[in-house]
Amino acid sequence: MIDIDQLLQGNPRSVARAITLVEAGGPKAAALMREIFPRTGNATVIGVTGSPGAGKSSLVDKLALYYKNEGLRVGIVCIDPSSPFSGGAILGDRIRMSTLGLDKNVFIRSMATRGNLGGLSRSTVDAVAILDAAGFDKVIVETVGVGQDEVEVVKTADVSIVVLVPGMGDDIQAIKAGIMEIGDVFVINKADREGVLRTQKELEALLSLAHRPDMWNPPIVRTIATENKGIEDLAAAIEKYVNYTAMADGETIATRKEAIAQWRLLELLRERLLADLLERNGTNKELERLSAEVAAKRIDPYSVVEELVSRKRQ
Amino acid sequence: MIDIDQLLQGNPRSVARAITLVEAGGPKAAALMREIFPRTGNATVIGVTGSPGAGKSSLVDKLALYYKNEGLRVGIVCIDPSSPFSGGAILGDRIRMSTLGLDKNVFIRSMATRGNLGGLSRSTVDAVAILDAAGFDKVIVETVGVGQDEVEVVKTADVSIVVLVPGMGDDIQAIKAGIMEIGDVFVINKADREGVLRTQKELEALLSLAHRPDMWNPPIVRTIATENKGIEDLAAAIEKYVNYTAMADGETIATRKEAIAQWRLLELLRERLLADLLERNGTNKELERLSAEVAAKRIDPYSVVEELVSRKRQ
Repeated sequence: MIDIDQLLQGNPRSVARAITLVEAGGPKAAALMREIFPRTGNATVIGVTGSPGAGKSSLVDKLALYYKNEGLRVGIVCIDPSSPFSGGAILGDRIRMSTLGLDKNVFIRSMATRGNLGGLSRSTVDAVAILDAAGFDKVIVETVGVGQDEVEVVKTADVSIVVLVPGMGDDIQAIKAGIMEIGDVFVINKADREGVLRTQKELEALLSLAHRPDMWNPPIVRTIATENKGIEDLAAAIEKYVNYTAMADGETIATRKEAIAQWRLLELLRERLLADLLERNGTNKELERLSAEVAAKRIDPYSVVEELVSRKRQ
Repeated sequence: MIDIDQLLQGNPRSVARAITLVEAGGPKAAALMREIFPRTGNATVIGVTGSPGAGKSSLVDKLALYYKNEGLRVGIVCIDPSSPFSGGAILGDRIRMSTLGLDKNVFIRSMATRGNLGGLSRSTVDAVAILDAAGFDKVIVETVGVGQDEVEVVKTADVSIVVLVPGMGDDIQAIKAGIMEIGDVFVINKADREGVLRTQKELEALLSLAHRPDMWNPPIVRTIATENKGIEDLAAAIEKYVNYTAMADGETIATRKEAIAQWRLLELLRERLLADLLERNGTNKELERLSAEVAAKRIDPYSVVEELVSRKRQ
């Protein structure tokens, strides 16, 4: 169904089809991923996260444009868990594609959860691997929101960028405390706004408390994405970190890569085990009836799980 | 270990211990949940979500205080996936508890993920059930972030509140589009800020496009939580929706409750199946070695999963 040769040559249609396949999951997706796995590992994967309203999309677009103008091929994968079914994301992709210039060197795709079983983080990581195998030099993963899954996905990148804006308000400390650990490069976007100095000082204070196992000192880059300001500095900071990790002692990197691999294995296992259970013994068909029983409080969910799991063992 | 009678009487220590138990998961947690399940269903569960920086914590505190002054018992469960291990959340709870007044009528707890296997959404829903069984009249679930899991947790509430602030910037449309579907009541907090009218108009326009199966028209409440303004209006809006659903035709409510039950069953199954697999055949011990193999690209993750799953079947 998917022409692997075309995919590896970066044919946009083959890439798009392959991503649709991994979104759906199942044995065909697994077979595809097994086949392309040896061809991955060449792209620089850049994770971008931060608060809603921080202007991540503009920043990612400008960064992609910068790479494109450098003669590189760029893939963008966006996770937007807040719009699971809507056509909004697809429309958004089209608008962004026309801004970025629709050609073989830029590919953009929003990931969606298709139904209850779709593991959004699993399919996103697979989509990144597809773009990597398809020969894209830079793959940018952009996440809206700061949920647990999104943080995990950003962690799988080679370099993680956390985007802040000046004067965010009272929850910002909580966010900073959490994402401080994953940021390799920090961006203060909309840097023409009031409060930029205060935000920078706060961030520096927080970063000074962090003890990174790799001894890296995360730089803070100021940007105004809408005016294309600071993008070159950001690209330089990314490059610097990537070079740093290439030079760093092998053990730190190996530990990080193993943690990513383990998280990925567990995600895949969770999805696979559930799919297997539901397929067997017509459990899938029973699910609706059992849910109704639980909703009516005739049985508790833990007892249902116990029954389904012990039945499976027979 | 946990005195069920004390728990059902609302003893804060028993409640705290029970929540710690469900955070850890496992058979003891399942046994506890089975036992208290018949005692749940009396509390009004209020989900609160929205952008970081929207002032959710202040709003939740003031709402809790309002209920407390009405002579009601209030439980607050916070999800903060961005700070998985830090003591920051616990310190934050203590500060909030002293603001709210530390007595038998207010209970506050931040949920944390403990390690890789902890299902944060599962344990949060369990914690809500514990507070419900312990006789709290109102249980407020507060989420930082807008990730997929958090949206699911808020959906399990009897009434879902989405908090916005004026003039959020360019990502706000994306968030609105996603959370519009789950908001039963909308709050524009920090309503003394510039841009409140524009935000209200935008929100009204978006809401006018929505088709809710329950025909409810979500109200927009303006608050300034830090000044305790609009809290009474918010409480009234919540009450109105809860009464509306109580009056609404049984089918719509049943469908919603069944969808929640199904999501909960799937979450529990995912966690249980993975735990079972890892326990058997010493897979847990092997995980580190297999992760290293995947990290070194000697084997792909899909093949590892295939092997582990087929081994289990023997």
